[in-house]
Amino acid sequence: MQPFADRLNAAIRQKATPVIVGLDPRLSMLPESVRRTAEGAGPEAAASAYETFCREVIDVVAPLVPAVKPQVAFFEQLGPPGMQALAHVNEAARQNGMILVADAKRGDIGSTAEGYADAWLGPGGTSPWGADALTVNPYLGDDALAPFVQAARRRQAGLFVLVKTSNPGGARFQDAVAEGKPMYWHVGHCVEALAQDSQSACGYGAVGAVVGATCPDELAALRYGMSHCWFLVPGYGIQGAGARDVRDAFDQDGLGAIINSSRAIIFAHAREPYRSRYGASRWQEAVEAATRDMIEALRAETPAGRLVATKR
Amino acid sequence: MQPFADRLNAAIRQKATPVIVGLDPRLSMLPESVRRTAEGAGPEAAASAYETFCREVIDVVAPLVPAVKPQVAFFEQLGPPGMQALAHVNEAARQNGMILVADAKRGDIGSTAEGYADAWLGPGGTSPWGADALTVNPYLGDDALAPFVQAARRRQAGLFVLVKTSNPGGARFQDAVAEGKPMYWHVGHCVEALAQDSQSACGYGAVGAVVGATCPDELAALRYGMSHCWFLVPGYGIQGAGARDVRDAFDQDGLGAIINSSRAIIFAHAREPYRSRYGASRWQEAVEAATRDMIEALRAETPAGRLVATKR
Repeated sequence: MQPFADRLNAAIRQKATPVIVGLDPRLSMLPESVRRTAEGAGPEAAASAYETFCREVIDVVAPLVPAVKPQVAFFEQLGPPGMQALAHVNEAARQNGMILVADAKRGDIGSTAEGYADAWLGPGGTSPWGADALTVNPYLGDDALAPFVQAARRRQAGLFVLVKTSNPGGARFQDAVAEGKPMYWHVGHCVEALAQDSQSACGYGAVGAVVGATCPDELAALRYGMSHCWFLVPGYGIQGAGARDVRDAFDQDGLGAIINSSRAIIFAHAREPYRSRYGASRWQEAVEAATRDMIEALRAETPAGRLVATKR
Repeated sequence: MQPFADRLNAAIRQKATPVIVGLDPRLSMLPESVRRTAEGAGPEAAASAYETFCREVIDVVAPLVPAVKPQVAFFEQLGPPGMQALAHVNEAARQNGMILVADAKRGDIGSTAEGYADAWLGPGGTSPWGADALTVNPYLGDDALAPFVQAARRRQAGLFVLVKTSNPGGARFQDAVAEGKPMYWHVGHCVEALAQDSQSACGYGAVGAVVGATCPDELAALRYGMSHCWFLVPGYGIQGAGARDVRDAFDQDGLGAIINSSRAIIFAHAREPYRSRYGASRWQEAVEAATRDMIEALRAETPAGRLVATKR
């Protein structure tokens, strides 16, 4: 198996888009046809509805985009049946040939960090949750990141370390200035070194960064300073950022970043213009249309447009 | 139900000790009698062994100490069967009347943080994982902590926010100095404000802090500055800290802190003096002896000794 960075690179080139679809199921927001079987029927029924819904989303988006990102919290919220559903959803993503980024934001020290890494990092289903990459939290320091990095390199998997997040309050600690630079810069500096160490053929490393779309200036500065890091960019869509805000996340070839949208795609049937056009009964078509619209917006407004001409 | 801080306070007073036993099962370290049923037999068998082992540890320590702390990573490492085992272990802790701190170090923003809080914070089994308290990571900022804090207050549950961790590399970002103070001080300042806001009868709040025993000077300074925060103190035992190192974690009544030991207690049969005395075949007696020894050491060397005279 190729290193994660190269597999992500190839998958983006093949689909000619950097869109990653976030799988954030919530019972109250599921289309009525899926929801009605589960409402008030307990966690097993809800977990089954999540699985059905996510499988159908994957079926719709797999031909269009390179990657999906299940948000682990919503599965964990349902207890053991939810975690079983997540394992099935992960398997469905793999069977559809998609890059699977588990958004779990894990972090711990020593053998505990090894436990999390062993749980999640398993391209092709070689670990219990079988993800190609995992989001991790850097607060516990570089020796706490090390077991994740070692596992990622050993298993041809990837990491996205939280550097600058998309929420307003992220500034509270991430923007605090130490030795003339904000904390997120110090974290980014550490992550870039790990990416350089794990660089593969495409020029990027196994260790990437989460950098929010809601702070375009910082995004541009980090892109410049972290030239070996894949960026996972949340904040597009419902959180307020548009295609222009993520322009500077990319390198000159339109690579180096994957742009996430979750609710704006998977629950497109509940918002205009898709609600009027498709409604809840044709929610899969709404997902497809919203995905295609995002792909087009990124092609029109960002360097990702260059992927079309160089599609392999 | 009483607020978490008051319930923890009462449980510590009742047992006259602040010891919290960490449940960190690992297949290779289980006593032979438990391990042999599971080795090489797949995740279901391993999960079953973890459950058996943790239930027996709970049976041994429940009469002696107020609280247990399952380390979620080791259960997650086994996939869905591991998470099912964790739910059963949590139930066993509750049925034994213990305070249950889920060590999951979760953290996310907005509705995702709500999902994690809803999953974990459920005293008495009122949520899927049914914990009295949860460890959380502050890197995403104060607005990311808010959903956890709201859920904790609503459900009479508690939080322990990572402030200063016990690993050497924790200094990398936590000790970076911004505006004349290290990052962990800024985080601690935020956490103390949240504790003041949620203060209950015992004088402590629903929001506490994780502060490592491996940095006694910082521990003393944080105790002084965070007078409304329960401290969860890791690092005792295998990680190198002893009873003298945690003296300053306590208030003058011997309250305000719970001191965690995991491997040094649950795998006591594998280290001296317990190995010679009990061996693997009498591992439960080794667990009991190691727990009693830790209780005695804290009574002899720290303000927790005062709990004996004031036992209710």
